[in-house]
Amino acid sequence: MENPKENPNPESTAGGVPKAVISRLSLYLRELEHLERTDKATTSSSQLGSVLGFSDAQVRKDLAYFGQFGYPGIGYRCSELIGAIRHILGTDRTWTCCLVGVGNLGRALLGYKGFHQRGFRVVAAFDVEHDKVGSSIEGVDVYHLDRLPELASENTITLGVIAVPAPAAQAVADRLVEAGIEGILNFAPTTITLPDGVSHVGVDLAMELEQLCFAVLNSRDKTND
Amino acid sequence: MENPKENPNPESTAGGVPKAVISRLSLYLRELEHLERTDKATTSSSQLGSVLGFSDAQVRKDLAYFGQFGYPGIGYRCSELIGAIRHILGTDRTWTCCLVGVGNLGRALLGYKGFHQRGFRVVAAFDVEHDKVGSSIEGVDVYHLDRLPELASENTITLGVIAVPAPAAQAVADRLVEAGIEGILNFAPTTITLPDGVSHVGVDLAMELEQLCFAVLNSRDKTND
Repeated sequence: MENPKENPNPESTAGGVPKAVISRLSLYLRELEHLERTDKATTSSSQLGSVLGFSDAQVRKDLAYFGQFGYPGIGYRCSELIGAIRHILGTDRTWTCCLVGVGNLGRALLGYKGFHQRGFRVVAAFDVEHDKVGSSIEGVDVYHLDRLPELASENTITLGVIAVPAPAAQAVADRLVEAGIEGILNFAPTTITLPDGVSHVGVDLAMELEQLCFAVLNSRDKTND
Repeated sequence: MENPKENPNPESTAGGVPKAVISRLSLYLRELEHLERTDKATTSSSQLGSVLGFSDAQVRKDLAYFGQFGYPGIGYRCSELIGAIRHILGTDRTWTCCLVGVGNLGRALLGYKGFHQRGFRVVAAFDVEHDKVGSSIEGVDVYHLDRLPELASENTITLGVIAVPAPAAQAVADRLVEAGIEGILNFAPTTITLPDGVSHVGVDLAMELEQLCFAVLNSRDKTND
């Protein structure tokens, strides 16, 4: 996750909660949803932690930023903790999104069931290529990028997903900002600059592989110690 | 990024360097490569930081984990710092990868130029569906998953990318481990369990959108303060 704005402590959110904690909340949520689907009504910090590779103390400490969720002798009630984490992350409501760039990655993202399952509603896709504009991909209509302001306003689009090549990303980001989008998920492998008040998460797939390489080397070193 | 193994301090690597630092190294590298492509020979910690939204002190502190890279009155020589960071991350060599699951996302990943540009060579793709096996996508041949051990050994495949649906991910991970893969990049939205010595980075696209929602809410709160 990237932070494109100057921030005295880039590892914390404005509320002083470390970003790593917010990241782990998403992991806890995914695991709790899995437990609920398999008919587990309750869990504990040690059970939740052990699946994810964290200590029980870590789980308790992370949750303690937001309140008291466990019950003595019971642990956590899955459905209750799911509700609480969704509320903290803001995914207890529906977010209206658009996607810009329907190349290979954009098409894959439009077909990604995980978005819909977690309450993200992609209401429009945009591109500038004539053979794409006017088509419909996974039930989402593709419009010319020039129609972004009009459709963003009509549909109250809050989040924008950028899936265009790196050289086009900043211009697309600027147009999303002009159209009143509050948050951008950027898959273009480049840094984009945004004004204050517009949030940003960057996902660079090659960077994730780089992180994996480092982990592999790090693990080899450890084995050779 | 997820850490599936029990770790007393999940925010640090085995070498004691915070994971957030390794993440930022990838960002510095991407920015330095951009500067080099635009014929900038040198840069400074404040220039590098300001583009990425970090302070110059943060940049200096991050790099100081690995040595002394700047020159008084000059700053950093881009090509030199690029080489140093690539060496730290381990991307100064070619990594041989395979991909399992050639659905929408798998196809998009095979077409993703960023992997090739950063030295990741995808030598084989695997699936179990008969209409996919035997095809070639973006120049990469698709084999039946049963041929993984043979091809992993022939090609010395080190990294595996999982792009199968969540319920199939653990079984695929187990087969990658059996085939001797050292690191797994998992795009399936589920936690996978791996033995010691196998590294893991998880990318859950819906989780990234969740993190964005939190950032948007956090930013709204700040504005309303």
